[in-house]
Amino acid sequence: MSLARRGAPDLGDARNRIVSGASSAASMLEESFAAAGSEACRGAFVRRFDATARAAAAAVDLQRAGGAPLPPLAGLAVSVKDLFEVAGQPTTAASAALTDAEPATADCPAVARLRAAGAALVGHTNLSEFAFSGLGLNPHHGTPANPVTAALDSTPRVPGGSTSGGAVSVATGAAWAALGSDTGGSIRIPAAFQGLVGFKSTQALVPLDGCIPLSPTLDTACAITRSVADAVLVHGILAAREVRPAPRPLAGLRLALPRTLMLDSLDDTVARAFETALATLAAGGARIVEIALPELAELAVLNAAGGFPAAESWAWHRRLLADRGKRYDPRVAARIRRGETMAAADYLDLQRARRDWIARVTAALAGFDAALSPTVPIVAPPLAPLVADDTQFFATNGLVLRNPAVVNFLDGCALSLPCQREGTLPVGLMLWAPALADDSVLGAALEIERALAAREV
Amino acid sequence: MSLARRGAPDLGDARNRIVSGASSAASMLEESFAAAGSEACRGAFVRRFDATARAAAAAVDLQRAGGAPLPPLAGLAVSVKDLFEVAGQPTTAASAALTDAEPATADCPAVARLRAAGAALVGHTNLSEFAFSGLGLNPHHGTPANPVTAALDSTPRVPGGSTSGGAVSVATGAAWAALGSDTGGSIRIPAAFQGLVGFKSTQALVPLDGCIPLSPTLDTACAITRSVADAVLVHGILAAREVRPAPRPLAGLRLALPRTLMLDSLDDTVARAFETALATLAAGGARIVEIALPELAELAVLNAAGGFPAAESWAWHRRLLADRGKRYDPRVAARIRRGETMAAADYLDLQRARRDWIARVTAALAGFDAALSPTVPIVAPPLAPLVADDTQFFATNGLVLRNPAVVNFLDGCALSLPCQREGTLPVGLMLWAPALADDSVLGAALEIERALAAREV
Repeated sequence: MSLARRGAPDLGDARNRIVSGASSAASMLEESFAAAGSEACRGAFVRRFDATARAAAAAVDLQRAGGAPLPPLAGLAVSVKDLFEVAGQPTTAASAALTDAEPATADCPAVARLRAAGAALVGHTNLSEFAFSGLGLNPHHGTPANPVTAALDSTPRVPGGSTSGGAVSVATGAAWAALGSDTGGSIRIPAAFQGLVGFKSTQALVPLDGCIPLSPTLDTACAITRSVADAVLVHGILAAREVRPAPRPLAGLRLALPRTLMLDSLDDTVARAFETALATLAAGGARIVEIALPELAELAVLNAAGGFPAAESWAWHRRLLADRGKRYDPRVAARIRRGETMAAADYLDLQRARRDWIARVTAALAGFDAALSPTVPIVAPPLAPLVADDTQFFATNGLVLRNPAVVNFLDGCALSLPCQREGTLPVGLMLWAPALADDSVLGAALEIERALAAREV
Repeated sequence: MSLARRGAPDLGDARNRIVSGASSAASMLEESFAAAGSEACRGAFVRRFDATARAAAAAVDLQRAGGAPLPPLAGLAVSVKDLFEVAGQPTTAASAALTDAEPATADCPAVARLRAAGAALVGHTNLSEFAFSGLGLNPHHGTPANPVTAALDSTPRVPGGSTSGGAVSVATGAAWAALGSDTGGSIRIPAAFQGLVGFKSTQALVPLDGCIPLSPTLDTACAITRSVADAVLVHGILAAREVRPAPRPLAGLRLALPRTLMLDSLDDTVARAFETALATLAAGGARIVEIALPELAELAVLNAAGGFPAAESWAWHRRLLADRGKRYDPRVAARIRRGETMAAADYLDLQRARRDWIARVTAALAGFDAALSPTVPIVAPPLAPLVADDTQFFATNGLVLRNPAVVNFLDGCALSLPCQREGTLPVGLMLWAPALADDSVLGAALEIERALAAREV
């Protein structure tokens, strides 16, 4: 098992090994299986698909032997959050309320696209039940430990969520990419907490069919990877489109630095890593322009009653809660039940207010390639106090969701990449922009990743 | 004033008069003004735009004199429902609650497109307050009489609504086309009751910005005209697209005849006109296939709590109702208040149920060029009993909305064209289809209009 860190091989490197004949897909997959079986990966998977994964890798090796061109994912291990339907497997959202779910009769479109691109789908990964919470706690399947912080400090820390197991699978090498969902940061928070890349694309670009919803207004199907180049590759597969990350030298980038909300309550590690990263980018010629963006202060008021997640999850869960509410994590059930009292007119007012807010924020960000913010204001917090205390859990959960959720409300796109120095706890740097600026964000991220890596040399 | 009837000149004919020099735009406009001032048109307009309309017509005449190509609407009179913003004019939805509305600072997109196409915008037309009801009653501005039935029988009958004044403006010659909205039949019902053509396009094709909403899920900006060819022309302008009505000879058409709901409670005049029209089409070679379409029976249950109009209008009106509820038509206020008790989850369930229903109905209609139904099961009813009695009003209103509202729930498109014999009360024949089959419906309607006209000769 090789923990992901800067310079560690990514999916593109692994593919090159297979293309060049340095390794077979089958043997690469066995390495991933070994990582999945390691202590560091404990709790990351809720079910494994070893047999079908081996068949996929073997098929790629046969193709290669026959001289056929290799598919983009080359039989490499990819994990799937236990929200997405995989043919022949149940989908249980890591919940005790769905343990008797029927196997899916077909892959959902996102999974089908990965499989068609040659992925060896290695298993369904653990998550915060029904994708609620940015911390990754799960009382049913256990909370996977954060394997990256564990290598740096002795306090067990949260993996981040909700795509907890997906991130652990990528960090440990059990997978080269993890399909997940992001409703308020569920891809980007665990990526930030584990030193990985999480790209939340514009929602409309990837189909959500066959994915258990949390909030259909905000949910996005997307992935965690080890590098920005891998994010480009996997996003192109999930979106079934040719991604053209705008190639922009650092000196040509114009980046907004919003002051409101996004810079509040940073812990020292995050503040230092973020400042240092900004200094590196500025030294490389990027123009970083502070803007107030006071619209961000409106979000707490707009979402005071629980927002779209409360209303929309209550609509989906209310019958299941009535039948099996006792099987739910009480913290998850409590968040869903907030939607019970929302009136249709309040919901519609929120949709209208959101459209107006999006228009204003989009106007304020016009002329920038992206905005820059810390993905999460704190490093991965210790697990034990969050398990013990509801108040601390809900306060910390709100804090970690705060920044990434801005982008879901914006219907925008965002990429989190690691910006900490080697040997320190992971910190995520978030580039974000309004809807459909995905290629611009990805292009800027490629440059920024390069600039941050260069300083290590 | 020349009442529209089959063979009466349409917008295309009027344009030809101007192109050929047989008439000037200015003199054509004065003829429209004369019609607008006639007794038959009383109550159709809530405000007139004579000065700007004259300037538009004069500009066209100047262009023609200078040898410039004429714009598509050639300075001809077009009316605008008092829901759409017109620069310099207030928008009052024919309500007493908005009498102090500020003038709009700009044309809304639908109006701007008509103006850019050379329309002489002649005025804001009357409607059922806030576009509620398919009958056209308005206690604030008076209910315009149905000018077409008035010429045939002595009982004052309803004009149909909600685009009551718009239809009267076209029927009397005060306008060659009427911009209106259709949420459950508001274009097609008055068209059917007055022997005109009403085309409700697929919602997404025409922008609704700057139009006072009733139900944003169902509202459609569209127009009433005198002929199908005019419907094609005006829809192309409103949608800013090139419409290509699929040219299909009658013998190549495959038309569905849904039995459920659509054929219930037909009065004798409608039943006879509809049957006769079907016989004409069948004799011309059209294949008419009866289908059950049992999904239509689900609508009453799905919308039992008031559906999208209740929830969405309550969200928009609740503050205005709190301030000025006493100024509303009590029948309109009562319908809006039904949305007060709808929960967000019920609203979301309805959205989900609608998506599922649309998928099933779309599948059932695959392979047909369009479905055929009576637009409204009854001819325009006498006005007096509906003014006098709430129970009769609401029952009749539900009956006239029943068929056209199916298409709004489907997110589809539909065209109503007259199918009665000359000299009898108008009856609408509705061609309808799922979303984005607009050109197919328009193409079939051109053929059907021709076939029905031919039998008169």
